[in-house]
Amino acid sequence: MSGEIMPISEAKISVLDWGFTRSDCTYDVASVRNGAFFRLEDYLERFQTSLAKVRIEVVQSKDEMRDIVHNIVARSGLQDSYVAMVASRGVPLIPGTRDPRQCGNHFFAWCIPYVHVIRPEVAARGAHLYVPREVRRIPPDSVDSTAKNYHWGDLTRGLFEALDAGFDTAVLLDHQGNVTEGPGFNIFSLKGNIVRTPDTGVLEGITRRTVLELCTELNLETDVRPIALSEFMESDEIFTATTGGGIAPVTRVNDRVFSNDAPGQVTNRISETYLSWFDRPEFRQPVNYLQDR
Amino acid sequence: MSGEIMPISEAKISVLDWGFTRSDCTYDVASVRNGAFFRLEDYLERFQTSLAKVRIEVVQSKDEMRDIVHNIVARSGLQDSYVAMVASRGVPLIPGTRDPRQCGNHFFAWCIPYVHVIRPEVAARGAHLYVPREVRRIPPDSVDSTAKNYHWGDLTRGLFEALDAGFDTAVLLDHQGNVTEGPGFNIFSLKGNIVRTPDTGVLEGITRRTVLELCTELNLETDVRPIALSEFMESDEIFTATTGGGIAPVTRVNDRVFSNDAPGQVTNRISETYLSWFDRPEFRQPVNYLQDR
Repeated sequence: MSGEIMPISEAKISVLDWGFTRSDCTYDVASVRNGAFFRLEDYLERFQTSLAKVRIEVVQSKDEMRDIVHNIVARSGLQDSYVAMVASRGVPLIPGTRDPRQCGNHFFAWCIPYVHVIRPEVAARGAHLYVPREVRRIPPDSVDSTAKNYHWGDLTRGLFEALDAGFDTAVLLDHQGNVTEGPGFNIFSLKGNIVRTPDTGVLEGITRRTVLELCTELNLETDVRPIALSEFMESDEIFTATTGGGIAPVTRVNDRVFSNDAPGQVTNRISETYLSWFDRPEFRQPVNYLQDR
Repeated sequence: MSGEIMPISEAKISVLDWGFTRSDCTYDVASVRNGAFFRLEDYLERFQTSLAKVRIEVVQSKDEMRDIVHNIVARSGLQDSYVAMVASRGVPLIPGTRDPRQCGNHFFAWCIPYVHVIRPEVAARGAHLYVPREVRRIPPDSVDSTAKNYHWGDLTRGLFEALDAGFDTAVLLDHQGNVTEGPGFNIFSLKGNIVRTPDTGVLEGITRRTVLELCTELNLETDVRPIALSEFMESDEIFTATTGGGIAPVTRVNDRVFSNDAPGQVTNRISETYLSWFDRPEFRQPVNYLQDR
């Protein structure tokens, strides 16, 4: 394994790094729960896909990245952790040139205590979502949403609007008026026996994939296609899905109340099933924590 | 003046900074030529506008920012410099929260030797521009192009396509098929006596503004409005404008050759006038270099 390990307070990146100055980077976030990574191979695989899509080559192989994230979590001692991998375009190898094909790219990883994108107390009562009127999600023909990226200007703008209006977070429409995603999560709509989630303009989340897979076990139908706002507002239940916190019920969207202003029954069943999947051996990679801590 | 000065090799930013992890920042770039800032007040004013638009408040006032950039250039000794100002959302003040209104924002500035976005030898023969077929500029209702930002995923994608196809750089279309801007520059089209540049989906460049102002002195008409690709391809002359390099003639766009494959006469006149404006006292702020270097 290459690279050095340092505390997060000392981990720094140059202000000249293109990852910073042009958000010219890609990243991924895996999680550790109860001392084990969940579906780490899927996260590593998606990260490789993102790297290829944005054409950032780094010297670390997928196997080395696996070793690195295991190593930093082991050293941190964190039993529940948010584990980020980032690859950045770095700086041009020849000063004064601006060729993105000729940069000193680099890879780094860091872990912190587990993060809930939607706070547990908010998930417990059901999140209140705001759909901004004006700001639209960056379209995929501008920035490919399936290559996990930091182009969050639209999401941040939406989040400001949502918070100012007294909501918990935002979900953005695309330019066709379909719901897409929010800052850090995918969105799901339940109607009857069918669980729907958008197919375009969104990150192909690993938690999203897990939900789609477990719905089959729960005898729910899945349907991945565009969802117009008008259809979304007629959902029986709505929930969000993200690595940082799992499933969170949504009880309000703008002025509409869903599932009697309480987490939906099907959502709760999906959330419980999701949590139970953390114990499945095929998804679980225990961290080999250092004994001498 | 607040803050500390350090060499660029030691100037670092935390990997947890939202400026890095979510490109949640805004910036501006002024230039020093022959020992003096050019139109610094306009750059400072635009930066204040960008800060308000993305709602990043920093403790430094505009007057302090002016002092800071003068100070770093003075200490660097650079007579010709690319001077960047960046304001970043920082990190949430309360760990675990994700409220962009409650972050430890910060401001920093750095200067390096003057940068030519389009290299002088390329500008001398005329740049070759590529208009990508698929990637489109991020629309203003997703990310406001007038708040100078680092959302360059689309521009970088276009630049890769351009370089792979043997061109010098790219200019992107918007979703309506109009030309917008390239990675780091505005674009101008001359037809007859009229100098045109797009009005939407672009940065309101200070060099762009300077060109529009000096055209009046040169008895050229100006016209700021959308320019369809088909109209653009019928230009008599084309040129780019940016703080990092000034005016650069364009002689080829895709398979079309302009102004006999040589820098256009009007473009050259505009470029010469632009350079002469650096000596205008109302635009010039000499740097007070340290004597003891």
